[in-house]
Amino acid sequence: MLPILHLNEYKISGPTVLGRARIEEVLMLLRGHGYDPRIVAGSDVRQVHRDFAATLDDCHGAIRAIQATAREGSGVGRRPWPAIVLHTPKGWTGPAVVDGQQVEGTFRAHQVPVSAVRENPDHLAILESWLRSYRPDVHFDAEGRLVPELSALVPQGDKRMGATPYANGGRILVPLDLPDFTTYALDVKAPGTTRAESTRPLGELLRDTFVRNAASRNFRLFCPDETNSNRLSAVFEVEDRCLIDARSDDDHVSAEGRVMEVLSEHSCQGWLEGYLLTGRHGLFATYEAFAMVSASMAIQHAKWLEAGRDLAWRAPVSSLNVLLTSTCWRNDHNGFSHQGPGLIDTMISMKGSVVRVYLPPDANCLLSVADHCFRSHDYVNLVVIDKQPQLQYMGMDAARAHCARGASVWDWASSDEGEEPDVILACAGDIPTMETLAAADMLRHHLTDLRVRVVNVVDLMVLFPPDVHPHGLPEATFTELFTENTDVVVAFHGYARALHQIVHGRHRADRFHVHGYIEEGTTTTPFDMVVRNQMSRYHLVLDALSRSRRVARGARQVEDHCRIMLSRHEDYVREHLEDMPEVRDWTWATR
Amino acid sequence: MLPILHLNEYKISGPTVLGRARIEEVLMLLRGHGYDPRIVAGSDVRQVHRDFAATLDDCHGAIRAIQATAREGSGVGRRPWPAIVLHTPKGWTGPAVVDGQQVEGTFRAHQVPVSAVRENPDHLAILESWLRSYRPDVHFDAEGRLVPELSALVPQGDKRMGATPYANGGRILVPLDLPDFTTYALDVKAPGTTRAESTRPLGELLRDTFVRNAASRNFRLFCPDETNSNRLSAVFEVEDRCLIDARSDDDHVSAEGRVMEVLSEHSCQGWLEGYLLTGRHGLFATYEAFAMVSASMAIQHAKWLEAGRDLAWRAPVSSLNVLLTSTCWRNDHNGFSHQGPGLIDTMISMKGSVVRVYLPPDANCLLSVADHCFRSHDYVNLVVIDKQPQLQYMGMDAARAHCARGASVWDWASSDEGEEPDVILACAGDIPTMETLAAADMLRHHLTDLRVRVVNVVDLMVLFPPDVHPHGLPEATFTELFTENTDVVVAFHGYARALHQIVHGRHRADRFHVHGYIEEGTTTTPFDMVVRNQMSRYHLVLDALSRSRRVARGARQVEDHCRIMLSRHEDYVREHLEDMPEVRDWTWATR
Repeated sequence: MLPILHLNEYKISGPTVLGRARIEEVLMLLRGHGYDPRIVAGSDVRQVHRDFAATLDDCHGAIRAIQATAREGSGVGRRPWPAIVLHTPKGWTGPAVVDGQQVEGTFRAHQVPVSAVRENPDHLAILESWLRSYRPDVHFDAEGRLVPELSALVPQGDKRMGATPYANGGRILVPLDLPDFTTYALDVKAPGTTRAESTRPLGELLRDTFVRNAASRNFRLFCPDETNSNRLSAVFEVEDRCLIDARSDDDHVSAEGRVMEVLSEHSCQGWLEGYLLTGRHGLFATYEAFAMVSASMAIQHAKWLEAGRDLAWRAPVSSLNVLLTSTCWRNDHNGFSHQGPGLIDTMISMKGSVVRVYLPPDANCLLSVADHCFRSHDYVNLVVIDKQPQLQYMGMDAARAHCARGASVWDWASSDEGEEPDVILACAGDIPTMETLAAADMLRHHLTDLRVRVVNVVDLMVLFPPDVHPHGLPEATFTELFTENTDVVVAFHGYARALHQIVHGRHRADRFHVHGYIEEGTTTTPFDMVVRNQMSRYHLVLDALSRSRRVARGARQVEDHCRIMLSRHEDYVREHLEDMPEVRDWTWATR
Repeated sequence: MLPILHLNEYKISGPTVLGRARIEEVLMLLRGHGYDPRIVAGSDVRQVHRDFAATLDDCHGAIRAIQATAREGSGVGRRPWPAIVLHTPKGWTGPAVVDGQQVEGTFRAHQVPVSAVRENPDHLAILESWLRSYRPDVHFDAEGRLVPELSALVPQGDKRMGATPYANGGRILVPLDLPDFTTYALDVKAPGTTRAESTRPLGELLRDTFVRNAASRNFRLFCPDETNSNRLSAVFEVEDRCLIDARSDDDHVSAEGRVMEVLSEHSCQGWLEGYLLTGRHGLFATYEAFAMVSASMAIQHAKWLEAGRDLAWRAPVSSLNVLLTSTCWRNDHNGFSHQGPGLIDTMISMKGSVVRVYLPPDANCLLSVADHCFRSHDYVNLVVIDKQPQLQYMGMDAARAHCARGASVWDWASSDEGEEPDVILACAGDIPTMETLAAADMLRHHLTDLRVRVVNVVDLMVLFPPDVHPHGLPEATFTELFTENTDVVVAFHGYARALHQIVHGRHRADRFHVHGYIEEGTTTTPFDMVVRNQMSRYHLVLDALSRSRRVARGARQVEDHCRIMLSRHEDYVREHLEDMPEVRDWTWATR
């Protein structure tokens, strides 16, 4: 790639920053960024064209020389890369002066230069003279066709700018050779009894994906600086971080590395977008709260995909896969600024035809979801799961079936035994799932006559009505999960009210009572995060009992217990600076 | 301000870009940005401290010299501003080597340098030696108090870093001297009959605000490059765009200008945030779709305000006022990438205590809203209105009362005459209001026995239940507007489903049927935008008739008419490349 800075000095109504800088400053800026800039400047059309052509040749030669050296592997390190500063007047060769005001070479050329051609003969004359300056009489024949000596200059086939396969990357896409994701499965003997870092097996899958596609060289992992922190470190068994000037004391850094770490969400997102659009594959892993930094880029990529779907000649490209780890619920140590699940809100406003949001509750579900995302095309797939040790629920077969459905009743956690439940506990996301199961556990053990159903949602899109999102469950399936009229207490990973916008249109949507992130947070303990946001197991039990279709025997005592525990929690975390052991160490098998 | 680049070469797991650049490149980068950088480098503690102190003095002198010249007004133009590159080892003076691995001067110093102090005596010894290197025995007395010769060095009062009023800007805030906004009112003789660019009178209010606060020098307007395009050009009668190197042929550009135009939403948003937090006032005006570029900054500012509310010692600062013009509905000419009302979605997920969203339907409402926003403190106020000529509805008295209520029944547009309406048409936003009124007009004239009520919402927050947002209307007031059970067809400026998340919790919220932006767009005509998104007057009429509590006589014919008109529209825009005259020229008084 050859960067060209067209320094025409002006924007729509005033000077640009670099347009008003001294040219030496512009050159220093580019040199500081590692470029070897050449200047092509002037306003004499023929001279500038000749200079520009010569400079292009010069740059091409310089790039080829750098490439040759690099490909010999002689390891000379980073060398300044050519760049061009094309310094010409704004509106160059357009109308120079209109109504006595200078247009060419000023900001006015950014606007409509001659605006009154219908009424003003002077304007019309300026327009005519401008258009004639392109010499259509010489360049086109009597039938309006380009003359042969010019049309002979036009490139053919894939050399045409709009036809180059690099601009329609699906044409040169080599499918990713993915390993069998089930081989990375965690062995989950009983649900909710063992803890593991769910992203570690994904790291192993990524590692082997690098190996299997080494020959195609078409897979990269993008991440600000957190590949290790996100527990994806297995990739470093086979890959390095990419940096040309690596030193011997660096940790897995080399010029050939395919793990792209730069502390800029914009760069990571932009690199991946370009990589996908030119026919390759990748994953962008980042902290949840900081995903908003590049949200506008994700929006524009989604819009690109939305528009591209209507163009038959555009070949499908690999999906934009975004993994959000270090989520709001477990940024207890980093604090309020790091707590923000807002990218879900942004993504669900985009079209259902291109956007998917997955909230795998554990490692095996994450593997199944990741495999699905890597095989998909033309989507933005948002996958949200934390990296900290967390309870594991599903064996691989069950996880696979669950992910294929998108949402399932978890019979092992339910006490409705096929009957109409008194209340439904639904959950989407890892921490919400744990709190929901702890709540179900409490209800099952203390209120044995209460019929509670637990539903887990891994594909958030299934909750949308089917006319809004293609994953939306048919009404009958939705009713199988959530019944027709039973109240549903939902624990949701994201901003609580976002879920209401998703379920709107479902039968009696107002029976969904959502607990989620309500912008309450600070530097505190993990359980205090769910307490502050009223999504704790105790809040869920209290809500479930208030929504239940009948009053279970002993409900009052359970409610009292919840309130006492919430009060004890307040005192305990202030005294011990960590969570109560019965909360911290809770597992499904405790009792 | 003196920028200091602490070049310690590493991030958490690898080298930084500038850490691996040649030092000459770092200097060129800073020089290219207009700085005159000094280097302080080394690892000898005493020497570096002496060098750093001398360099600080040097920079201070250089800044004072630049200021003196500038304040003499001798107009020497821009001069390189001092900056320091502090080049020292990462983790400097921390543990040098742990477990045989180099820590000081590497990325490992970013992590926990000695992690096993409880189990490993070597680690404990390293920790002790490290902490003792700070010489607590010399710096503290036997009671643990700082020794007098050191505590004497501590600044007093406002010179303490945390007590400087510039870090608690509310302490030095001079209230904005605002003109009487009603003097800029448009004269609206009859609702919906005349068109005007609604942001022009706001420009006049801003102009006079600049004049009235000239002595306090505490108001600025921030805008990428669109002050003129956004019809706020009256400010240029009294103010310039700010640029030090202004030239005579520039248009309203000077070193003293208080209109801050830079083609970077990040810079505009960041400048305004800093300006507010240091006790000043301002407005950020930008294209709606591009507001997402700096959305994560708006989120963090809102979080700052949320957290600051709990700190009694923080004085209130002026609100962050964001004006979104050039909205999705009128970016028909710019196309799909410019159509995105997503900042509303982002903002409504923040806490009700700090966030407000206003959708004034016309110029006089905008004036009233703007006055309210400029007088408020500690909020993020999002105001959305387009800049194109649009129908005007309310005289100033009516507009003022309407904005104070946040939402009102528009009796002049309604045909329910105090009776229970058959259907309610609600609208929020300028274009949705016009489509709603055109729909009401059709219904009134063709179905004289149908009782239609029109409700306009200017403060979107009033729709939230009162426990979610302090502006949320009490249930009784909400019922006065929207009744208890009548269906409400809503035309909403933003993403359609966002409104469902707002009204959730209201009585029978599922009777709200929302038409809004559904991510359908392209380069087309204005009316085609509302047709594609199913928010056109015809779509609203069809929906209203299907939701109406009874079938009005003649309804079938009106439905047929709507379908015919939608079909005609398709043909017409393709043939004429503009909208049907009866749509384009519609006003409330047409019939």
